[in-house]
Amino acid sequence: MKKTNATLADGREIVYFDLDDSAVRELVDPRDLPAVSTASQFRLDPLLDEWVAMASHRQSRTFLPPDEECPLCPSSDGRHTEIPASDYDVVTFENRFPSLSTAAEPPQVDAPNPLVPMRPGFGRCEVVCFSSDHNARFADLSAAQARLVVDAWADRTTELGELDGVEQVFCFESRGKEIGVTLSHPHGQIYAYPYLTPRSSRMVDVAARYRKRTGGDLHTDVLAAEREARVRVVAESTHWTAFVPAAARWPVEVHVYPRRRVRKIPDLDDAERDDFVVLYLDLLQRLDRLYDSPLPYISAWHQGPVVDTEELGYLHLQLFSIRRAADKLKFLAGTESGMNAFITDVLPEDVARRLRDI
Amino acid sequence: MKKTNATLADGREIVYFDLDDSAVRELVDPRDLPAVSTASQFRLDPLLDEWVAMASHRQSRTFLPPDEECPLCPSSDGRHTEIPASDYDVVTFENRFPSLSTAAEPPQVDAPNPLVPMRPGFGRCEVVCFSSDHNARFADLSAAQARLVVDAWADRTTELGELDGVEQVFCFESRGKEIGVTLSHPHGQIYAYPYLTPRSSRMVDVAARYRKRTGGDLHTDVLAAEREARVRVVAESTHWTAFVPAAARWPVEVHVYPRRRVRKIPDLDDAERDDFVVLYLDLLQRLDRLYDSPLPYISAWHQGPVVDTEELGYLHLQLFSIRRAADKLKFLAGTESGMNAFITDVLPEDVARRLRDI
Repeated sequence: MKKTNATLADGREIVYFDLDDSAVRELVDPRDLPAVSTASQFRLDPLLDEWVAMASHRQSRTFLPPDEECPLCPSSDGRHTEIPASDYDVVTFENRFPSLSTAAEPPQVDAPNPLVPMRPGFGRCEVVCFSSDHNARFADLSAAQARLVVDAWADRTTELGELDGVEQVFCFESRGKEIGVTLSHPHGQIYAYPYLTPRSSRMVDVAARYRKRTGGDLHTDVLAAEREARVRVVAESTHWTAFVPAAARWPVEVHVYPRRRVRKIPDLDDAERDDFVVLYLDLLQRLDRLYDSPLPYISAWHQGPVVDTEELGYLHLQLFSIRRAADKLKFLAGTESGMNAFITDVLPEDVARRLRDI
Repeated sequence: MKKTNATLADGREIVYFDLDDSAVRELVDPRDLPAVSTASQFRLDPLLDEWVAMASHRQSRTFLPPDEECPLCPSSDGRHTEIPASDYDVVTFENRFPSLSTAAEPPQVDAPNPLVPMRPGFGRCEVVCFSSDHNARFADLSAAQARLVVDAWADRTTELGELDGVEQVFCFESRGKEIGVTLSHPHGQIYAYPYLTPRSSRMVDVAARYRKRTGGDLHTDVLAAEREARVRVVAESTHWTAFVPAAARWPVEVHVYPRRRVRKIPDLDDAERDDFVVLYLDLLQRLDRLYDSPLPYISAWHQGPVVDTEELGYLHLQLFSIRRAADKLKFLAGTESGMNAFITDVLPEDVARRLRDI
């Protein structure tokens, strides 16, 4: 794998990840681009004690462009995209419409609420192009190509985690216009947050209480119990287990754990990475056959915090979909959106069986 | 107001609320209905320590029927709907496809995960028909009719709160097929939960910490600060204030507080109820003019827990929408669904100004 860093016309960083160690990258972006907005801000929701990011410049972001105007395809025939190269394997670059920015400025509000602290929307948002093929799915990638994506996630997790002020790095893919994806080119995103996100913070608290009560590691014990129970396991490989969690909250939800407890993607060794992509590609293909159509999904890597002194994190992937039937989506209704109380229409054991039987 | 209790063919309770104190209700439901499912269950998500309800029988629930088959219209011309009467003002009844049931049975699973406790899906789900007019919006109701809805919410909150095992009552309206509403007839729902929901539990914890730190009441102080700041206030009346919260997480979000601190809807006096409907009807009409089309919204009443010994609750309405532009919806993307870290594209001060200026 060869890694090449370069800079886009407006100063954003772009990183090429090439399978071919001898690849040489064109590094000049000839476009005339406006400056990237630095207006993002955070405000603390005083009722829930949770930070909310506000990025009003994102209202004008690119929205479902026609294929021939895709900004994530390679540049060609005089059309300059976000990637100033005629081809690429995997590439990551800073989002042109970032929710968070390392250059975010202190918010200015005429009449703030003194109970609502504000701070700059510090952080970083990167785009990861999984393939130069506009019509590919992640599930279509070769094992080598998928492995290159894992290496890119690992690299970015390390690099972004070293930025002063970043406390968590989140690699994820959202796929499908049903869930609001605005670009159809196969890509994911990476968010570097200046705080531990609410879900992660909750997971750390719950794991800490569990350790105090039992002396054990929560994730390790949940994984062991699912391997013992078998009924919710979807797939297993030498180093990984994929199962539908016993209390799944989404109509399709699979958790994928490495058997060796590591905190972050960069901690995975070569064998674990190679083994992951085989299991993951198979899993993604099953998901698309569940309803014989591309399943809208979110694939979310839960990594430990950048600084994890208590060692409570356990790397795992949460892969989930809002599709509850071939022609129906699960919407977050009043009980979920208003109360965060989830109600699901399917049983985990049934979903696991269907995914195994495909 | 006259209240009449009756029973539907399958044993479900129905309650008529009539403006006319002399109303006489037909009480016989001639249908031959199958028994209501009691298969709901709760499972504890061990990673987040939150209960997830599972109601697999709901997969077959009525989904966007044509107008002439609406189950919430009055019965007529030999067609028997859920309401065995030729007309009604406001009516509430137990949901035929309930997520929670007072008769829920202990879950049976072949190979449970011992770290995932299970319990019956105890609780109650009611439907509230706001009007017999299939095409009405809540915003179209007369003040007297809307007041009758408030009285119905109050009545159901009291009655359901008295059921042994119910710890929280949630009255809400979801409107719009964009957010998955399966019936277009103007209606809301009421959930009686056997536990304090995650959002409410979090609000109580945060309010308790605030009281310990400052001696004050969090909601009272937030309301006072917004009334002082003015810029986010959308509307005020004698007894109520509606404002866009300074850290709003939805593209349109308005919180409506009574100025007198009460815990629950039944605690509101006559003057407060009458005053609420005037402000609320005006607010709903503004929402529909925001994009000159019916706004998909969720209107969620946050009431204190049934038993609120520490008196940390403060009744308020959270009215919010996922519409971020005339032609665009805000979807919960990777950061929200995966990390519960909200990012919004609009500033609260701008939303408040637009809602005031309509």
